[in-house]
Amino acid sequence: MSDSWDVVDLLAEIADVGRDPVRGGYSRHVFEPAELELRAWFTRRAEQLGLTVEPDRNGNIWAHWGEPGPGTVGTGSHLDSVPGGGAYDGPLGVASALSAVAGLKADGFVPVRPVAVIAFAEEEGSRFGIACLGSKLMTGAVDPAAIAARADTEGVTFAQAADAAGVDSAGIGRDDERLSSLGCFIELHVEQGRALTDIGAPVAVASAILAHGRWRLAFHGEGNHAGATPMADRRDPVVAASAAILAARDVAAAADKPGGGVSARATVGRIVPVPGGTNVIASRVDAWLDVRGDTDPATRALVAEISAAMQIAAGKEGCRTEIIRESYLPEVTFDPGLRDSLRAALAAVPEFGEVPVLATGAGHDAGVLAAELPTAMLFVRNPTGVSHAPAESSSDDDCRAGAAALATVLAALAG
Amino acid sequence: MSDSWDVVDLLAEIADVGRDPVRGGYSRHVFEPAELELRAWFTRRAEQLGLTVEPDRNGNIWAHWGEPGPGTVGTGSHLDSVPGGGAYDGPLGVASALSAVAGLKADGFVPVRPVAVIAFAEEEGSRFGIACLGSKLMTGAVDPAAIAARADTEGVTFAQAADAAGVDSAGIGRDDERLSSLGCFIELHVEQGRALTDIGAPVAVASAILAHGRWRLAFHGEGNHAGATPMADRRDPVVAASAAILAARDVAAAADKPGGGVSARATVGRIVPVPGGTNVIASRVDAWLDVRGDTDPATRALVAEISAAMQIAAGKEGCRTEIIRESYLPEVTFDPGLRDSLRAALAAVPEFGEVPVLATGAGHDAGVLAAELPTAMLFVRNPTGVSHAPAESSSDDDCRAGAAALATVLAALAG
Repeated sequence: MSDSWDVVDLLAEIADVGRDPVRGGYSRHVFEPAELELRAWFTRRAEQLGLTVEPDRNGNIWAHWGEPGPGTVGTGSHLDSVPGGGAYDGPLGVASALSAVAGLKADGFVPVRPVAVIAFAEEEGSRFGIACLGSKLMTGAVDPAAIAARADTEGVTFAQAADAAGVDSAGIGRDDERLSSLGCFIELHVEQGRALTDIGAPVAVASAILAHGRWRLAFHGEGNHAGATPMADRRDPVVAASAAILAARDVAAAADKPGGGVSARATVGRIVPVPGGTNVIASRVDAWLDVRGDTDPATRALVAEISAAMQIAAGKEGCRTEIIRESYLPEVTFDPGLRDSLRAALAAVPEFGEVPVLATGAGHDAGVLAAELPTAMLFVRNPTGVSHAPAESSSDDDCRAGAAALATVLAALAG
Repeated sequence: MSDSWDVVDLLAEIADVGRDPVRGGYSRHVFEPAELELRAWFTRRAEQLGLTVEPDRNGNIWAHWGEPGPGTVGTGSHLDSVPGGGAYDGPLGVASALSAVAGLKADGFVPVRPVAVIAFAEEEGSRFGIACLGSKLMTGAVDPAAIAARADTEGVTFAQAADAAGVDSAGIGRDDERLSSLGCFIELHVEQGRALTDIGAPVAVASAILAHGRWRLAFHGEGNHAGATPMADRRDPVVAASAAILAARDVAAAADKPGGGVSARATVGRIVPVPGGTNVIASRVDAWLDVRGDTDPATRALVAEISAAMQIAAGKEGCRTEIIRESYLPEVTFDPGLRDSLRAALAAVPEFGEVPVLATGAGHDAGVLAAELPTAMLFVRNPTGVSHAPAESSSDDDCRAGAAALATVLAALAG
């Protein structure tokens, strides 16, 4: 085990864990071998730092500096990834937290309030389909019985996977003891966009998270023979879904004006024709729609417009549609007081000065916790702007700047 | 074991084999348990009828009435299905052949030429991706070494699957002995369209099969975050594929004039985004394009036009495309002399009279064998017009009319 606490070295230690040979990048899904290896690595490294490591009832891991108790300054992020994701989304926040705590210890800093580094479970929702699952279970935002019964694509339930990983699935659900111990939570995260590159700054503070929901779209047509069925006689749900995908893109593109301060996003990244044969006109297509917007009403209006356009598009192909909401979270505005405390602490360091304030389209555990306690986020520059893909990146210098910024903030909040 | 040789009873015996609980209909793929059960059923039933049953070197099963030898009148079809296919596509031809031979035997008919009922392997190409695989292996239309190495979606090779089913994969390839024994081949098949319903006749004779190919389309874009990436900055291959699918449909629909004697078909029934996450803009999409047309030049022109439209559509989304041919067969015109013999034999039976002559968009083993010997087809009315889907159907009366027509034709050719 290395004794370097440089965030770049910490990330290098896990650079070979969970590589995806098919998609490229990383596939680290909750309670699967790669993610369990990262949990073990986090536990070892936190204990090496003298922290007290303990899993909570919902599969999240807590590493305390100081006696657990009220007013704890929480920090951290997650270790899991999307399928074929990048190296920074999640692990950068966890590694930066370890690095920041190590730096403060080395400087002889003694926290007045306890500090807890937390690695949240299943933030991406890649295995069980619900993003920020660990924080949502902890806050009671999801029904534990329904979560326990949810199955992954192999038919393994969350309860089975959790039990096998040593997390007693009978105990999942709202955790008042943990929640009440937290005075605030600061999540550092790689930026998922190019705003910091355009501004020319390494670090920003978050203002808000877009409202965000997922819908399953079902297109019902008529299965038939690909060769024998005249084009005019078809009710092809692949064609209907294609028209609907273009309609969704057009509606969102017309509304999305990032330069003008309006964000509207619509994405279909998963589409499954049934039966899925090459020489068969499909009978049904399932597609999943991800929509985000600045506010709850704006996002609902966007989905309503997409839904109407989708039905018209599908109707022209003789297909029937369903749109089923799978998840939805209104926008999150991070605590303005905490945000200003972060900016003030960073302004006192010449390296940072006046850091920019950015909204983000991506969901985070800090957004879920915002319903319960003051939370804030730090973003670290990502020159490609790409996230959820192998091209996601951050320079070594910017990673170190992020860890230093987090240490500055933790010292201000825990001191 | 029943002793009824009514084709409706024969189909009822296998009505529970290989049902697909997810897609509906049947999933009976070569060398998988359901298809092996159908092979065993066919073998038992043919032996009960006094036929000599023998598999050939390529996994097809032959059941001879009379000593095998030159001038054999072949008939039959296949037992496998597309994923979630109907009950008639394939099994109707096999069951009708058994029923027709039983009827001729019961009538005391003594064939001058041997008759062979043949069940061809992997006609749909649903497991190893090449349609009419059993007849293509027999005629040498495909390379045996390449076929042996082809893997299904689970990674099982054709060689492994064949060996496990008792078909020695070392022996696959062109089979001159079997081919030279066949004087002609007659395949009865459920109609894959509504022409016989429109005409009001139970049975037709085939004129031709459309030219047919499959292409893999790859769309390369840029994977990114579904929430954080502005709509204007995206290179989304799902959007590009959707635009290309609509373009392919438009090109084929403009050319397809079934009433005017021109057939042009383009279908995408299978589409796979990579990585396929709900909250991820895909980096790549693979889609499979099935195209059919009246003639080789017309079909090539259709594919060229679709390819050009696809590239323009994808280019607008900032995506790059590839189009890779996976299979191609020019049109097949069935032997005119044999076709006229069938029509003449049926014209002598008042129940049939002047039967219609139809082209078809679907590929068949009879089309593959047409390159080697005179072949012909009988189509049986399908009131839904649907095929390759659970709604495929044929009335009991029409199934019996088809078996009777086949018996009439076999008597004329083998007598």
